[in-house]
Formats: sequence, structure tokens, C-alpha cells
Amino acid sequence: MTDQSPPEPPPETLPRLGELGLSNFAPYLMNRIMGRYNASFREEMAEMGLTTPKARALAVLSVIEGPLIRELAVYAVVEQSTLSRALDQLAGEGLVRRATDAADSRATRVFITEPGRAVFERLWPHMAQAQARMFRGIPEAERAAFLGTLKKILTNIRKHEL
Amino acid sequence: MTDQSPPEPPPETLPRLGELGLSNFAPYLMNRIMGRYNASFREEMAEMGLTTPKARALAVLSVIEGPLIRELAVYAVVEQSTLSRALDQLAGEGLVRRATDAADSRATRVFITEPGRAVFERLWPHMAQAQARMFRGIPEAERAAFLGTLKKILTNIRKHEL
Repeated sequence: MTDQSPPEPPPETLPRLGELGLSNFAPYLMNRIMGRYNASFREEMAEMGLTTPKARALAVLSVIEGPLIRELAVYAVVEQSTLSRALDQLAGEGLVRRATDAADSRATRVFITEPGRAVFERLWPHMAQAQARMFRGIPEAERAAFLGTLKKILTNIRKHEL
Repeated sequence: MTDQSPPEPPPETLPRLGELGLSNFAPYLMNRIMGRYNASFREEMAEMGLTTPKARALAVLSVIEGPLIRELAVYAVVEQSTLSRALDQLAGEGLVRRATDAADSRATRVFITEPGRAVFERLWPHMAQAQARMFRGIPEAERAAFLGTLKKILTNIRKHEL
């Protein structure tokens, strides 16, 4: 056979996990890292009497003014049903308040209160130090490049325009 | 006052979340990304009749030969109790087998079987394509640098020497 046509490239070249190695598969590394980060976060928040959903909600509300509950669920990466229970507790403790949206009476917005802000001020150092631990020994330029890539990846895979 | 000594540096300079912005806080971005990745993965695995713990266990076992159960739990990022149930199911389906460690009769090692490998071969394209979606439009050199930073971060925060 004297077929002179160049070989067809494979339709899609997917590396095999065995060749790649687990530690070159980005989702594996990110799940390992966030599994550890979130376990430490949960323990530290528990010592302050907070759950992860409550702490994440306070963190988001400290920087985003009055989001809709479904927006807050996306930012806090908490299921809406779990978030609703967390907001019930936070509202009961006077740390957030809920208000009907001015434009849509079926939609609810959430606001942090001054006591809520005070609680966030106590938990933020834990979050900032946890991030500092992650980046220990990693030069500033490398951190910045890493954040830049994370933003591109989030844009690539997010479902919500938030 | 003519104190000539240089000013003390602040004991620890932690940026505030409001200055940083949520989207410059790495754990936030990584939780957003992995929340989305893991939700898609769960849906795709469910269509194949697998749960996330079962799929992750098969993936790890396809590249790591006969780990101890506690090592598998670390690699698969699955709680040991959840992993034990997943292994019961996988063993019942003939996809893995468990064997007592030769050196320690109280320790159990887990091995993938040939049918288990065949199932992994069907699920790997989903995992590889999910990673490809994450990195869409991101140049190879940037991906490599990103992986390099992830490995440093895992070394910084992991508890296990694995």
C-alpha cells in the first residue's frame, strides 16, 4: 500500500491518567487542597460557634451589598436549602436582615448588620491567615499569575454570570 | 522626640477582604471552581451509575497499586466511613478487591480488578474533558505554571505525607 496522504490526527487527544500522573491532574490537586482548607476552616469556625455556611455568608455579605438569596448561594458556594437555614439562624442572632426586593416582591435580599460585621471582623483574620499559609514561600508574581489563571478557569466553567 | 530607630514593621499585615475583593481571594475562587466541577462530575457519574466516592476510588486505584484504605481516603479526598461504604459496593460489583496487608494483619489494601479498570476506562474521558474545559484558551506554559503552584500549595497545607 502506498497511501501518500498524511496520517489523520486523532479526533481528540486525551492524555491517560497513568501517563499524566495524579499530581498533574489539576482537579485532583484542587480537591486535595480545598478538602484540607475547608476542613481546617470548619474546625476554626466551630470554635467561634459558626458553621461554614454561616461564616461564608457573612464573608460575602461583608463585601457585597444586599444580594438576592440565589446570588448569595452562588457566591458562598452553598446549596440554597442549606443557605436558607443558615440565614434563619443568622437573622435570629441579629447578624443579617432580610428584605423584600423593591422591584420584585417575590425576591428577597440579604444585608449584613453592624453586629454581623463585628463577627466577620473576628473571623476574617482566620481566613486571611489560611490564605497566607497556602501561599507560604510562593513569590508575589507567582501568586498573581496563579490568581489570574483561577479567574480564567472560573470564567470557563461557571454557569452563572456572577 | 528624636527617636532614630527605624519604625517597627506591623506584626502581621493582613489585607482586608474589602480591599482585596472576593475575586482576589484564592480560596473563594477555588471553592467556586471545584463546586462547579464536582457538581458536573457528580451528574456525569450518576448517568453511568456511579457515585463520586466510587468514581474517585476507581480513578486513584487505576494509577496507585494496592494502597491502604487510609491512603486511598487521602488520595480520593473521601471520608473513611464514606469510602468504606463505596468499597463495599465496588467489591460487591467485582470492581475492586480487598486484601489483608502482608506486613500488618489489621491493615487492608485495595486493588482494582480488570472489570474495575474497564469501568475506569469509560469514566476517564469525562474527567479528561472536564479538565480540558477548565483550561480552554489557557496556553500550555500557563497551565504548567499553574500546576506547579498547585503542587507547592498542596505541600504547604497537606497534613499527610502523601
